Amino acid sequence: MPATPMRKQVEEYILDLQNRIVGAFEQLDPNSPPFRRDEWTRNEGGRGISCVFATPDDDKSVLEKAGVNISIVHGMLPPAAMKQMRAEHGSVPIGDSSMPFFAAGISLVVHPRNPHAPTVHANYRYFEITDLPAEGEKSAEDGTPAIGKLLAWWFGGGCDLTPSYLYEEDAVHFHHTIKAACDPHGAALYPEFKKWCDKYFFIPHRGESRGIGGIFFDDLCDKTHHVLPDSIERPRTPEDIFAFIKSTGDTFVPSYVPILETRMRTPFTPAHRRWQLLRRGRYVEFNLVYDRGTKFGLLTPSARIESVLMSLPETARWEYMTEVGTEEGSEEAKCLEVLRNPKEWV
Amino acid sequence: MPATPMRKQVEEYILDLQNRIVGAFEQLDPNSPPFRRDEWTRNEGGRGISCVFATPDDDKSVLEKAGVNISIVHGMLPPAAMKQMRAEHGSVPIGDSSMPFFAAGISLVVHPRNPHAPTVHANYRYFEITDLPAEGEKSAEDGTPAIGKLLAWWFGGGCDLTPSYLYEEDAVHFHHTIKAACDPHGAALYPEFKKWCDKYFFIPHRGESRGIGGIFFDDLCDKTHHVLPDSIERPRTPEDIFAFIKSTGDTFVPSYVPILETRMRTPFTPAHRRWQLLRRGRYVEFNLVYDRGTKFGLLTPSARIESVLMSLPETARWEYMTEVGTEEGSEEAKCLEVLRNPKEWV
Repeated sequence: MPATPMRKQVEEYILDLQNRIVGAFEQLDPNSPPFRRDEWTRNEGGRGISCVFATPDDDKSVLEKAGVNISIVHGMLPPAAMKQMRAEHGSVPIGDSSMPFFAAGISLVVHPRNPHAPTVHANYRYFEITDLPAEGEKSAEDGTPAIGKLLAWWFGGGCDLTPSYLYEEDAVHFHHTIKAACDPHGAALYPEFKKWCDKYFFIPHRGESRGIGGIFFDDLCDKTHHVLPDSIERPRTPEDIFAFIKSTGDTFVPSYVPILETRMRTPFTPAHRRWQLLRRGRYVEFNLVYDRGTKFGLLTPSARIESVLMSLPETARWEYMTEVGTEEGSEEAKCLEVLRNPKEWV
Repeated sequence: MPATPMRKQVEEYILDLQNRIVGAFEQLDPNSPPFRRDEWTRNEGGRGISCVFATPDDDKSVLEKAGVNISIVHGMLPPAAMKQMRAEHGSVPIGDSSMPFFAAGISLVVHPRNPHAPTVHANYRYFEITDLPAEGEKSAEDGTPAIGKLLAWWFGGGCDLTPSYLYEEDAVHFHHTIKAACDPHGAALYPEFKKWCDKYFFIPHRGESRGIGGIFFDDLCDKTHHVLPDSIERPRTPEDIFAFIKSTGDTFVPSYVPILETRMRTPFTPAHRRWQLLRRGRYVEFNLVYDRGTKFGLLTPSARIESVLMSLPETARWEYMTEVGTEEGSEEAKCLEVLRNPKEWV
């Protein structure tokens, strides 16, 4: 009997991870309603489950807005899309006909109500391009269509923290937990992916980062990497890379939930809330203007817009030339300082 | 004595229009503080005045957030920028050296507090590309640098209304006033520019328009137009086009202020406010994802970001799969219906 195909393993993993993460949040706040679960299917092939938390008429909940989504989709990738992908994924085959693809991933954003509790985001994904099935090839006995030879595949993902008020011990805990999950898979992974994260979440027009970082990576596969030098020791077989992905996915709850638990009941004033909403405005700016996933979703005619824009906060605020955060030595200025000059936390 | 150059005429006009518009809003709400006036200069050449209204700590004002900005800038346009511009401005010269440009415009966005009062936006602008001054050419006696031969020029602009609650009589008044300002300059202008406006302010990922339209136009010059067929009667000399621009600019106050006056004291509930904030979320989506002026500003390293993003509302809201607006026959659904199917108002 052959080993379970990677796409199946990833599907099982993200389904389970979604349940564990949603469960952790529900357990933390048993007095609030559970997450809403929406299962959807995609006409072009595939399905997803969106787990969303929102209580627009109630401000007692720990979370304000949160989404933990998975999607498992497949279809045909046009040559133009493949050409574009080749810039960041050197293994994408060259050709002028559409090729079958498969993509599975989990994506989450959690905006807590309390201004002292940080927003968090994480995303782990797997992508495959396969050959067309050989002529006459039969479907599997269980009815799933035949899958051609695997031509290209990669994993990508990351997670990052966005506080409105900086608690250094929270930043250290978050980065430390993630580093501990990365290190067994290669000592260079955390430092390289931390750097990549700071670069990715930079908002050029504001000259500041969206948050205090975490890790970000893409194109992890057996081939030459478009960003990492070949000298870097990193997992290269599908099994080794998937083991790394599982480590980082599994570490989400321990990296974030203890921080939320510590901050979720911190007393706050309307001034704290106002600053939090201004920071959420920056979050919206990053996601709508720069985030690749969001941009890709907005441009995809068949995308499920409610899932794509689930990352946006319940409320955001923009003030012209706001004076909040400009007072030297204030807690707001302290946070801004770190967003303007990303630092090493471990 | 030569006629005043067009760039000088435009500068004088927008300075005066800005004062008149700001004055009209200040007169409407004498108990609120006046607009804040920020004059700025651009290192690369030029200046601007931002007039902004914001009272983040007070919810008694008629306006919630408003900006009426002018900018008068000049500098050198790189060949790559000119090449890009040529798609929409056929008169832009072909060449591989940078050319001097001049741009002057007024841009305004007004978000009132009352959910029954619509948001309004308007923008009128003038652009010039000139040759380098002839070698040895002296600056004018008043110290302004010599200006080379005019190689290309155009006007652009428009205005549009974004209600959260649809009052048909307001939509009719707005469009009727604008049409009356357009008609003396060519009977086809209003219908063509209304169509263009509906097209421009469409939000593809939502399948709806940002608002109920108005007019939108660009590239108005003496040459062939990139959108309008040559058969359309339209102003073609600089003086005739500028007269049209002045008509539409002058009509801003009468097209909008009476609507605001009628709606600004309408009683409203938290449910009305919630819907207004959801609609403001759509406004943010359009401006950050699609609006050309905003995108251009975000990509311009020397741009004044606070002015570029002044158009964003004070507060906006996003709910996952919101049920607001889905109830058939509700006032919210009535507004959505018109945003999904733009109609003719005059």
